[in-house]
Amino acid sequence: MAKNQTIIFKNPPIICGTYTISGPKEGKGPFGKYFDRVLKCDKFDEKTYEKSECKMMQTAILSAVENCGLKEDQIELLICGDLLNQTVSSSFSARSLGIPLFGIYSACSTMSQGIALAACLISGGTHSLVAVATGSHFSAAERQYRFPLEFGAQRPVISQWTATGCAALVLKQADAKQSGTKVVSATFGTVIDLGVKDVNNMGAAMAPAAAETFLTHLKNTQSKPDDYCAILTGDLGKLGSEIFIDLCGQEGVKIGNNYSDCGQMLFDKYQNTNMGGSGCGCSALIVSSIVLNKLKDKKYKRVLYLATGALLSPTTSFQGESIPGICHAVEFFCK
Amino acid sequence: MAKNQTIIFKNPPIICGTYTISGPKEGKGPFGKYFDRVLKCDKFDEKTYEKSECKMMQTAILSAVENCGLKEDQIELLICGDLLNQTVSSSFSARSLGIPLFGIYSACSTMSQGIALAACLISGGTHSLVAVATGSHFSAAERQYRFPLEFGAQRPVISQWTATGCAALVLKQADAKQSGTKVVSATFGTVIDLGVKDVNNMGAAMAPAAAETFLTHLKNTQSKPDDYCAILTGDLGKLGSEIFIDLCGQEGVKIGNNYSDCGQMLFDKYQNTNMGGSGCGCSALIVSSIVLNKLKDKKYKRVLYLATGALLSPTTSFQGESIPGICHAVEFFCK
Repeated sequence: MAKNQTIIFKNPPIICGTYTISGPKEGKGPFGKYFDRVLKCDKFDEKTYEKSECKMMQTAILSAVENCGLKEDQIELLICGDLLNQTVSSSFSARSLGIPLFGIYSACSTMSQGIALAACLISGGTHSLVAVATGSHFSAAERQYRFPLEFGAQRPVISQWTATGCAALVLKQADAKQSGTKVVSATFGTVIDLGVKDVNNMGAAMAPAAAETFLTHLKNTQSKPDDYCAILTGDLGKLGSEIFIDLCGQEGVKIGNNYSDCGQMLFDKYQNTNMGGSGCGCSALIVSSIVLNKLKDKKYKRVLYLATGALLSPTTSFQGESIPGICHAVEFFCK
Repeated sequence: MAKNQTIIFKNPPIICGTYTISGPKEGKGPFGKYFDRVLKCDKFDEKTYEKSECKMMQTAILSAVENCGLKEDQIELLICGDLLNQTVSSSFSARSLGIPLFGIYSACSTMSQGIALAACLISGGTHSLVAVATGSHFSAAERQYRFPLEFGAQRPVISQWTATGCAALVLKQADAKQSGTKVVSATFGTVIDLGVKDVNNMGAAMAPAAAETFLTHLKNTQSKPDDYCAILTGDLGKLGSEIFIDLCGQEGVKIGNNYSDCGQMLFDKYQNTNMGGSGCGCSALIVSSIVLNKLKDKKYKRVLYLATGALLSPTTSFQGESIPGICHAVEFFCK
């Protein structure tokens, strides 16, 4: 275990605003009604899927800031990342905002990596008001990572479905007495690679990283799975979640009914997404809507969010490499 | 100007170790003798250029840690990014290190963005020992962004040459009395896009962002260009540097002989790199070798490093987009 891998924040920041925007398919999923906006068409009046992703991202950021009763020029830093090559939906969405941009990349663990960083910066006192955003687009991801949609490739049974959607959060400095949902701790994950080479089986590639970060977080915070109202992995999907539970079980950590996987939550079974949802937008949509709502409404008190990312590129797979995974954990608390 | 864009560190971290490794062409440049290692072949005994970049990155990280008399498991966080799709040389280099990875993307401004973040985390007290690394590879970048080398495309006169090389730094918590080179302030840049669409003219695309961040930094730190022993832009190249000087002049800020551009420094004129070097590795190599050496040897006291990045992707250019630029500034001080 690395030194100081879990940070317990001395001055935990508060989440003061969120916004979620999804594609139509995601809107029809079991939690679609909790998203702030569901698009009727995933092109979002743009000519390309990439431009649509960028517009969703910008909409999410602006609306999250507005939901806090703030203006863009009050936000000190925008932490933003996505799946597109050179994270262009993040960079292009920041183009007209005038907020300093901190670009990140951590595949589908972008949201928890971003929240963890925002919390470090605010708790450490260098910043007091930071926005975090991420998202993905099914059609943009398909043609970049797999096949153009027009090709009509058959989807393997173990594949996942990249979510179309973006989410943004605003985190703010808070004093100890202030009520609301706070980010109380975070664990930055190490890169774990057990040799999975099947690019369709992201769940299996990411599950070992999720287990590693989860067990490290439990150890460093001296907590047990039962201490959390909810434990959410990013988007391991059905198979990945089972592997995650198995791996934790092998280390003597039994995972109960308080565990869910955002990839399994995003879509209904009849939506034909095989193992479930994936992509930066997947867990970002679920956590920034229903999960943070439940914390706000005091239905949850303590939640652990473990977003997971597969750090491959098409080039590395063509060159015969296996798929490294990573998982960053953030802990929410609302008293 | 955004709020709190410049952070003046309360507890400035010290740079306790560096390592630079370059390709053969970079080694033949005017500052090649200052690099820790110059490869004889840019394949670095690997089968592909991408794997070579990854191996350079890993070598740089491990050697920088070793140069501080430390072991990898003492490093609390590795902040790392590169130009390859999905920043794979960073992720893959972290695979065997066991250091928690924080993946970043900021094109050729990765090094200053990484140093700025490390300084925020250490000054804020959430971390005490952080490594930062970046790099690039000419041949990997050419085939990803432009043409495969085998195609033999003619290079436009305004083009730049992506550096083959990686650099790593280790930053450490320090007390006020400790001597050595410290990171005393940083300015996170906003995304600036004045509409340049020529993908060969990166200098022109990035110069406005460099000027914006530079002027913001001067204003927020109440400093003048003459206050610095050296002012270094990332890799604007010959044309970009001239535009940078012009843009600053228009705002009444005259830039003197203490200004250089790392892109112009990396190669000699006879090396046929047209406007000069570029890529994440370019300014990272120069700053982590000759510049930090001069600070250590008390030949420099106060240095401003403005790494600049062009936030495009081939896809955005094919879709008719212009090229957004960004620049993050870090200020080094050695008393």
